[in-house]
Amino acid sequence: MNKTLDPADWAAFSALAHRMVDDVIGHLSTLRDQPAWRPMPDSVRTALTAPLPETPQGETAAYEDFLQQVLPYPNGNLGPRFWGWVQGNGTPLGMMADMLASALNPHMAGFNQAPALVELQVLDWLAELMQMPKGTSGILTSGGTVANLLGLAVARHANAGFNVRELGLQGHEHPLLTVYCSTEAHGWARRAMEVLGLGNAALRRIGVDDQFRIRVDELRDGIARDRRDGHRPICVIATAGTVNTGAIDDLPAIADLCRDEDVWFHVDGAFGALAMLSPKLRPRVAGIERADSLAFDLHKWGYLPFEVGCALVRDAEAHRATFELQGNYISALDRGVIAGGLPLAERGLELTRGFKALKVWMSLKAYGAGALAELIEQNVEQAEYLARRIEDDPDLELVAPLALNVVCFRHRGNDELNREILMRLQEEGVAVPSQTLIGGRFAIRVAITNHRSRLEDFDLLLDAVKRCAT
Amino acid sequence: MNKTLDPADWAAFSALAHRMVDDVIGHLSTLRDQPAWRPMPDSVRTALTAPLPETPQGETAAYEDFLQQVLPYPNGNLGPRFWGWVQGNGTPLGMMADMLASALNPHMAGFNQAPALVELQVLDWLAELMQMPKGTSGILTSGGTVANLLGLAVARHANAGFNVRELGLQGHEHPLLTVYCSTEAHGWARRAMEVLGLGNAALRRIGVDDQFRIRVDELRDGIARDRRDGHRPICVIATAGTVNTGAIDDLPAIADLCRDEDVWFHVDGAFGALAMLSPKLRPRVAGIERADSLAFDLHKWGYLPFEVGCALVRDAEAHRATFELQGNYISALDRGVIAGGLPLAERGLELTRGFKALKVWMSLKAYGAGALAELIEQNVEQAEYLARRIEDDPDLELVAPLALNVVCFRHRGNDELNREILMRLQEEGVAVPSQTLIGGRFAIRVAITNHRSRLEDFDLLLDAVKRCAT
Repeated sequence: MNKTLDPADWAAFSALAHRMVDDVIGHLSTLRDQPAWRPMPDSVRTALTAPLPETPQGETAAYEDFLQQVLPYPNGNLGPRFWGWVQGNGTPLGMMADMLASALNPHMAGFNQAPALVELQVLDWLAELMQMPKGTSGILTSGGTVANLLGLAVARHANAGFNVRELGLQGHEHPLLTVYCSTEAHGWARRAMEVLGLGNAALRRIGVDDQFRIRVDELRDGIARDRRDGHRPICVIATAGTVNTGAIDDLPAIADLCRDEDVWFHVDGAFGALAMLSPKLRPRVAGIERADSLAFDLHKWGYLPFEVGCALVRDAEAHRATFELQGNYISALDRGVIAGGLPLAERGLELTRGFKALKVWMSLKAYGAGALAELIEQNVEQAEYLARRIEDDPDLELVAPLALNVVCFRHRGNDELNREILMRLQEEGVAVPSQTLIGGRFAIRVAITNHRSRLEDFDLLLDAVKRCAT
Repeated sequence: MNKTLDPADWAAFSALAHRMVDDVIGHLSTLRDQPAWRPMPDSVRTALTAPLPETPQGETAAYEDFLQQVLPYPNGNLGPRFWGWVQGNGTPLGMMADMLASALNPHMAGFNQAPALVELQVLDWLAELMQMPKGTSGILTSGGTVANLLGLAVARHANAGFNVRELGLQGHEHPLLTVYCSTEAHGWARRAMEVLGLGNAALRRIGVDDQFRIRVDELRDGIARDRRDGHRPICVIATAGTVNTGAIDDLPAIADLCRDEDVWFHVDGAFGALAMLSPKLRPRVAGIERADSLAFDLHKWGYLPFEVGCALVRDAEAHRATFELQGNYISALDRGVIAGGLPLAERGLELTRGFKALKVWMSLKAYGAGALAELIEQNVEQAEYLARRIEDDPDLELVAPLALNVVCFRHRGNDELNREILMRLQEEGVAVPSQTLIGGRFAIRVAITNHRSRLEDFDLLLDAVKRCAT
């Protein structure tokens, strides 16, 4: 009579849930014995094109399919020798916090509920860790791209010089709104310019110095030139930790320039911002606390599982003004479930949002900010160790200076050899670095945001590189 | 020496994880005995402003804080008598799938991995359920707002008449790009216009008929008027299930109009699209399969936990062309972990994405699409039952026709009385409907996307309404 998706037999479901926990804990506690990555067999590819299930196969059979077809074949970022792109490992506590978040399943637009206060508390903590002032606004996001896009959206709203929400960028006369970043900035900048209707052509890409940092003099000249041409510079995007080499722009100089020019100072600190947690590393990213808006991820160098990024905005009123809501059905009352309104839906794109905050909250409580700082320092020390070993090896060369935790190197052989080395490292399941181009040459790139790596893993990497080269 | 966020004692962590599973299953299996919502005591509000944890308190203590401060005080959407706004309950299997997704923690931009194939398979299944053609493209999103925004972004790209990615909407001559929706469309439409730089002023709000459906004749006139004025109509937003009353626009008529006018046909089917799963309800939303782009949520009427929405785009090439990536460090190779590239990052905003697909995949396998259809039908029958009981009661009145699963009603007393009734229902923990304004009058709104509701729950609601009114 009354149908539901709750289990008909709670005890049986509970047994299955406990089995799942045992299986994944077994998996996570033995990662070191597993290959860094394994290619999928054709049988799995075929299974994953099976037709739409019309009839039920039951929870246990669905789980068996997961065990057979999915668990053995992810991209590998759980493991101790995964250093590809920039991906965190996730943590066992983060995993269980995600389960608790999904169990409680609160609607995180706001509402008169504890989960909303948890997110606000986490945002305050994160602002404090970034040494931004009390009263800084923020929002947790799917990741860096959206966090960065939100920063740029607030900059556009605050600095357009007209009501950009109402009028948009079309159908009325206004100076071209221009934005600045370096040639090493991440692809999100282009995507955000496109999505926001500013257009890629209004993104001024400024050259970099030999340490891959934006040339501040060229940036100043670029802004002046655009002003002379009647354009309106609205925002500079600085990067704390570029994706290619980990380079950190001269943040204090850019902050000064933005102040003098009355231009929004946005910092993309996707992974690099986390260096703020360490007193030892903080000087490298100093100036970040002067950002008008700052984006970073907790699922990269915060080690937490996907997804959780963060945007912080110094001017809370500008943040809210950019995304303030209207609508009869969401108007706040002063009592009941919606008392206090939906403040978290007035800080970003989403109205419906999940409880990403819980894993941040539980992790900071369980481990303390200090433990994260020590792990971040450990990764930087590992990068320094790896760079030293490469410098000491006559067959290998560093192709970019080490700024933080990204090591770009190559064998002194040609590009083809280096590409083959990288493929074999992955295909043999030894390690997963990724690739990039530095000065037009193929480079093996080791981005270390991994809490499972040990020093010996980098020895193993270099031994395998040398072996594959012969 | 080697620090990590893995547990020092796996057995102890495993015991804690099992305790968490027992606790949440205990919580979920006794929801019927719990209040529909409870206000937070001041002690909890105070605890949730505690300072940043610098030092570790351990995993167990962090969990105790969750049990004390968070678990008892969500916004209430788990329970059988929550019908506020439009929120799903989540499911126990969805919860465990979220844990498995977080355990595996794959980076869902693409990559040569099974999780990416799971998402592609789920997208094919969802396109089939929506009766859209083979080859339809899609992407899972945080929810309806972003899914809808993506549809509008593709429409903008496909129909602007110039290279909107490169040029943006500024700095060059072009006709005003205009978009159309009804006055009952959801607030996402305004937000998307603003974010995309089109501007709220270019969103034409067309009036509705007495069933709250867009007036197609006025829509046709509006498009013609804009063309006469030199503007360029690019997209019509139709709604399958408005947020206020559940009204369904005349989709076939709008599809015809869009075809004749060469305008993009976008459908916001946030919850209503799910009626496509039921042969009985499908005629009400017929025409949805003709959409150029369609947005809907699995975390509303798909009952799954937050977050999982979906955007489907008929023209796969237009979809990819809108979000195609560039960047040295992500260029695909033909072997190894990145073979096949990052197709899922070329369909939406994010580069880093979580494994939202797993809960959809496991749920469809475990229960079959048929079980979802039966639950959706059950919710519609419950809405019909509630509407009948209201019509039969001389003290109560329906304030909008019942189109699907949203019942808007009021006591025949004044607005103040109705507001007081709603507050007491929530504060006493009886039930959580929400409010809206219909024709300027306060209405109690019951949106039924709840797999835990039984017929008796609606009796209980009306009994409490009558009691509170006296």
